[in-house]
Amino acid sequence: MDTVSLIRRKRDGFALTADEWRYIACGISQQKIPDYQASALLMAIFLQGLTAKETADLTKAMLESGTQVKLDHIHAPKVDKHSTGGVGDKTSLILAPLVGSFGVKVPMISGRGLGHTGGTLDKLESMKGFSPYLSEEKIVRMIEEHGIVMAAQTESIVPADKKMYALRDTSGSVESIPLICSSIMSKKLAEGIDGLVLDVKVGDGAFMKTRKDAKALADAMCDIGISLGKKVTAILTRMDQPLGSTIGNTVEVYECLAALSGAWWSADLKEVTYALAREMLRLADINATDADLDARIATGVPLEMFQKMVKAQGGTPFIPILNQDALVPDTKIHTYIYTRRPGYVSGIRTFDLAVELNRLGAGRLTQQDKIQHEVGITHMIKLGARVTDTVPLMQLHCNTVPDVNFADFVTLSDSKPEVPSPIIR
Amino acid sequence: MDTVSLIRRKRDGFALTADEWRYIACGISQQKIPDYQASALLMAIFLQGLTAKETADLTKAMLESGTQVKLDHIHAPKVDKHSTGGVGDKTSLILAPLVGSFGVKVPMISGRGLGHTGGTLDKLESMKGFSPYLSEEKIVRMIEEHGIVMAAQTESIVPADKKMYALRDTSGSVESIPLICSSIMSKKLAEGIDGLVLDVKVGDGAFMKTRKDAKALADAMCDIGISLGKKVTAILTRMDQPLGSTIGNTVEVYECLAALSGAWWSADLKEVTYALAREMLRLADINATDADLDARIATGVPLEMFQKMVKAQGGTPFIPILNQDALVPDTKIHTYIYTRRPGYVSGIRTFDLAVELNRLGAGRLTQQDKIQHEVGITHMIKLGARVTDTVPLMQLHCNTVPDVNFADFVTLSDSKPEVPSPIIR
Repeated sequence: MDTVSLIRRKRDGFALTADEWRYIACGISQQKIPDYQASALLMAIFLQGLTAKETADLTKAMLESGTQVKLDHIHAPKVDKHSTGGVGDKTSLILAPLVGSFGVKVPMISGRGLGHTGGTLDKLESMKGFSPYLSEEKIVRMIEEHGIVMAAQTESIVPADKKMYALRDTSGSVESIPLICSSIMSKKLAEGIDGLVLDVKVGDGAFMKTRKDAKALADAMCDIGISLGKKVTAILTRMDQPLGSTIGNTVEVYECLAALSGAWWSADLKEVTYALAREMLRLADINATDADLDARIATGVPLEMFQKMVKAQGGTPFIPILNQDALVPDTKIHTYIYTRRPGYVSGIRTFDLAVELNRLGAGRLTQQDKIQHEVGITHMIKLGARVTDTVPLMQLHCNTVPDVNFADFVTLSDSKPEVPSPIIR
Repeated sequence: MDTVSLIRRKRDGFALTADEWRYIACGISQQKIPDYQASALLMAIFLQGLTAKETADLTKAMLESGTQVKLDHIHAPKVDKHSTGGVGDKTSLILAPLVGSFGVKVPMISGRGLGHTGGTLDKLESMKGFSPYLSEEKIVRMIEEHGIVMAAQTESIVPADKKMYALRDTSGSVESIPLICSSIMSKKLAEGIDGLVLDVKVGDGAFMKTRKDAKALADAMCDIGISLGKKVTAILTRMDQPLGSTIGNTVEVYECLAALSGAWWSADLKEVTYALAREMLRLADINATDADLDARIATGVPLEMFQKMVKAQGGTPFIPILNQDALVPDTKIHTYIYTRRPGYVSGIRTFDLAVELNRLGAGRLTQQDKIQHEVGITHMIKLGARVTDTVPLMQLHCNTVPDVNFADFVTLSDSKPEVPSPIIR
């Protein structure tokens, strides 16, 4: 096969075959196709799109460019969840042990913060010693022994994606639905799962700003999964405010521990987490109500599973803090942010807030940056809440004085706004 | 300026400014913009196009990325020809000495094979020792002493184009009117010429498949040249069959030597070459008929000028072969291709034929590939010819057994088809 001809065909809007996508995925992962050809092809894909069949073929080819986690010998349902990324989006840390406590195996291969969003691996690394870098054998052993695992992509899982993502990021072809889909789905399908629940975030704090784009992404990913023989379902959830009460790595782990302890978590975080949990369980043919989930948390089993997983991956688990006011991470500055005038919270500029928090060290501005895990926000005000000069908008924990007033990210109105459910569909 | 943002703007269909095109042309020529970003940008330009102003700005930016040949001290008309590229398109090698023999100076800065088409420099390098790599001083001296020169772009002439041309060739963004336009015109304007004749090829074997596209390209190039104070004129010629009797590097040089010897050349090659010669002479205020051109060739002066130029550029000139049957290049395989049934040649899939011939080594599939100069086709059948099982369609000279039957590129009809003149306008 001749790479230039394939680029030209895609450029001219023709569909490539499964064999051709295999040639491309192998060629890119094995560096037989040079970067300048790969980036031109990615731009052609961006502008000409891929058919549903091409997207599935590309995903399969990417998946087959590397190895896959072998879980066939484990005779239990294997289900994972994937979020398209948001601010304060910490559901994975609660979901894995909660769903896992029902006997469902949850092999999560997760990522790091991307752009303004946080990443599961960064959060977990707040706990001293925790390592997400497990061999495939260790991943299998974790599932066998603990039922859950939270690991980074290994070198040999979907190597084509690693290369393609880096090229897209630096040559302007990131925001392409078929490319986003195949990137996500190839990694998830390499986990050896039977079922996958997608949490597609919509809104200012998400990558998909409109419901239409989010639905298109969700549909395309479901199509791929189903055509490759997996149970895949998607929930669209709002990302018009940070999810939960905390944003940042250390503080988000504490919020999850509080949730798993049945101590405190905000209503929106609980609603989204439970909706995703019920959906994951449904894919494993288990029907559970919110009351069932509450009861399960009350047994203490999910919390214990989480702490055991952390230990098994080398980490020193945090001790749950049962009162949010006692959650004071180890930063130099702890400052309550107050409004200038009383009112109801009618909007939160979630993207801008996340970017500023990353600038304070909670996330990376370049790939080389080191994260300050302890930097973050607690007591984040929620949409619809009434604030006065004695009710803070949030508490900011950081090591340098911020350039901006974080109060400016919160919009107030005089009358109480309607706050819709965080679950769109 | 941030390259990824510029790629994204062009990708999304916005026009870039003159400053931005300067940043891009400099960045590419100075290798500050890496290949994978440049090729993605070129694909975005291919698919989103450039406005007339952007094309002019890019051309100027490319021209200014390097130096220009200084021929102002030579008080004679300086005229060049440029072809948009075809299969078997070898007119330059005949035109330079033929027009040069009238006292017109012809400083040709030529290129290599691009996509499926051949390149003048690749052809000339069939002759052992021939070097197209001349300094600008040497180019000026060649014009002073020999009246003609066929050189590669020097390192310092339009360095942006050299890089862009190579990337487009190997990453599938060749057939773009604005990119073709800016590539051609920036190089030609750097030669120090007064006049330029454009041979705009139309048809299956050309980059422009329709007369409308070809006319748009011709008009755009004439506009740029005229706005920069040059005489520019364009002829549209057919590329619905390979031009002449030969395709390939070595064999095309031999066909040109045969033409300059008055020995053999096919009618279509002669008609196109003479039309271009008359037009070049007209720009130098010289009127010449076909009979004048025949007479000039009969003097032997054009052949001598060509051979002297080759020697002055370090090459060992081929000795003309005055009978095509005796033209047997040094390949392992020499095979006559026959039709399966008798008939009249009604069509030749010129593009596909050229691609297959390149695959056999006559051209490059990637930037690193080495050309096998001797690979080629002789005795190429012409449209309208009658073939039987004893009249071959062509003779193929190659080193590996082809995957395809070259007879399949030739379509036959039962009645003699109308064959129009190769000159469209």
